[in-house]
Amino acid sequence: MRHTPGMCQLLGLNANTPTDLVFSFTGFAHRAQEHKDGFGIGFFEGAGARLFVDPVSARQSPVAEMIRRYPIHSRHIIAHIRKATQGRVALENTHPFMRELWGRYWVFAHNGNLVDFAPKLHAAFRPVGDTDSERAFCWLMQELSKNHASLPSVEHLTQTLAELAAGPARHGTFNFLLSNGEALWAHCSTHLHYVERGHPFPTAQLQDADVTVDFAAHTTPTDRVAVVVTQPLTCNESWQALGPGELAVFVDGRRRLPP
Amino acid sequence: MRHTPGMCQLLGLNANTPTDLVFSFTGFAHRAQEHKDGFGIGFFEGAGARLFVDPVSARQSPVAEMIRRYPIHSRHIIAHIRKATQGRVALENTHPFMRELWGRYWVFAHNGNLVDFAPKLHAAFRPVGDTDSERAFCWLMQELSKNHASLPSVEHLTQTLAELAAGPARHGTFNFLLSNGEALWAHCSTHLHYVERGHPFPTAQLQDADVTVDFAAHTTPTDRVAVVVTQPLTCNESWQALGPGELAVFVDGRRRLPP
Repeated sequence: MRHTPGMCQLLGLNANTPTDLVFSFTGFAHRAQEHKDGFGIGFFEGAGARLFVDPVSARQSPVAEMIRRYPIHSRHIIAHIRKATQGRVALENTHPFMRELWGRYWVFAHNGNLVDFAPKLHAAFRPVGDTDSERAFCWLMQELSKNHASLPSVEHLTQTLAELAAGPARHGTFNFLLSNGEALWAHCSTHLHYVERGHPFPTAQLQDADVTVDFAAHTTPTDRVAVVVTQPLTCNESWQALGPGELAVFVDGRRRLPP
Repeated sequence: MRHTPGMCQLLGLNANTPTDLVFSFTGFAHRAQEHKDGFGIGFFEGAGARLFVDPVSARQSPVAEMIRRYPIHSRHIIAHIRKATQGRVALENTHPFMRELWGRYWVFAHNGNLVDFAPKLHAAFRPVGDTDSERAFCWLMQELSKNHASLPSVEHLTQTLAELAAGPARHGTFNFLLSNGEALWAHCSTHLHYVERGHPFPTAQLQDADVTVDFAAHTTPTDRVAVVVTQPLTCNESWQALGPGELAVFVDGRRRLPP
C-alpha cells in the first residue's frame, strides 16, 4: 500500500517471543529520492537495545544492506523512515531516538509535525539535534521521571503517557511509537493501525512501498505478534485504526486494554 | 603486537578532520575464542553518534562484517573488544556505552576490573546492564552533571574528570576512553599509549592481533590524528605511555596539555 506522500512511516512490533524478522528495503531502491532523509530501526534484546540509523538514502547505505541480511530476533522493534519536516538532514536528527531512564533504555520514533512546541526542559533530558520530535521525546522522558520515582507498572506508565501525550498533540500531529523493552506504546493523532496475529502467521509478507518484513517460517502455536504501522500493510487481515488522541499499549504480542 | 591475554582492548581516535577509517577484524577470525565476548565501536558524526555493538564473536557477526566495509568518516572514535570480567555476556553489557548529558552524547569504554565499586547512583544515570564499567560511567556522568550546570569548556571538563577518575581507580584498574564528539579523554591505570600523527601518515597499517585500521590514502598537509590504544600498534613511531592515574585529553588530533 502506498504511503501518504511527504509523511514519515512508522512500524512497530511487539511479540511474546523473540521473533525472527528480516527487513528489506526493496522499495527504497526504486524510490530513494522520496525518502532520502534517512531511516532507522531500534530493537531490544532483553534489556539491551540496538539502534541502526542512517541519515542517507538506503540505496547507498551499508547499514541498510546489513539490516537486510541480519537475522533480527527481538520482542520489541521500532522502525522509522524519514522525510524531513523540521531539522536538518543529519545523524543526530535521525529517528529512532534513545535515552535511558530508571535503568532501562527507551526508544522513540515520531511521525508528524509539532508547531511551536517549546517546553521547558529543565531536567536530565536534552535534545542533541534540532527536531521537534527529539524535543517531544525529551519532554516525555522528563515528565515521566517527575511522575514516578522508579519504573512503574505498565498500567501506570500507560496512564501517565496518555495524560502527557495530549500536551504535544495540541501543537500538531503526534503519532509516535515508544518502547522500553517491556511494552510498546502507540499514540495516534492521525494515522496508526495495528493487527494482532497468532500461529500460524499469514504467509503473506508485510509489505508497504518501502519496507518488506518477512516473518519466520517457523512459529509455534503460542507465538503472538502485534504490528503497528502508519497504514495497513495487508488486505486480508482486520487492521484496527487508532483514533485521534488514542494511546494503545501492547504487551506480549497483544493489545492490553484498560481494566 | 599481542595484547595481554584476558584483557580487553581499547582503541581511540581523535582527529582535526573527519578521517576515513576502515576497521577489519582479521584477527578475530583466527582467535574468536579469545575475544568471544563481544566488541563495539562508537563514532561521532558532528553531534550525532553511532554505536555498533555485538555481544557475539566477530566471526559470526553481520555487524563486524558491515563495519569492515563501512567507510567511517569521523573525528572521534572509540572501539572496544571485550573479554568479560564482570557481567554476563549480553547486549546490555557490551561496550561502548552511551548517555546524553547537556544535549551531547557521551561514549565510554573501559578496560579493567573494579572491585566493590558501588557508588550511590541517585541522579539521572542508571546502569541497564550489570557491569562495573557501566556503573562507573553512570557515576562519572552523575558527578559531571553535579559539578557543572551546562557544558563547560574542555579545560574545565578535564579538570573535573581528573578529580573524579581517582575515585573508581581506587577500586581497581580504570583505563577508559570517553568522548562527547568535541574531545577524547583517556584515563590510564595500567596500560594506555598514544601517538600523534601528521601528514603524510605512515603507510604502515595500524595492526594489533584483533583489529586492523587502514588510514585513508589521501590526507592533506593540515590533517592531524591522535591514536590511543592499550598497547602500541607500530614499531616505527614514538608511542607515549600514559602513567598510572594520568588523564590525557585530545582535541583536533593533538594532546592538549594543561596550561
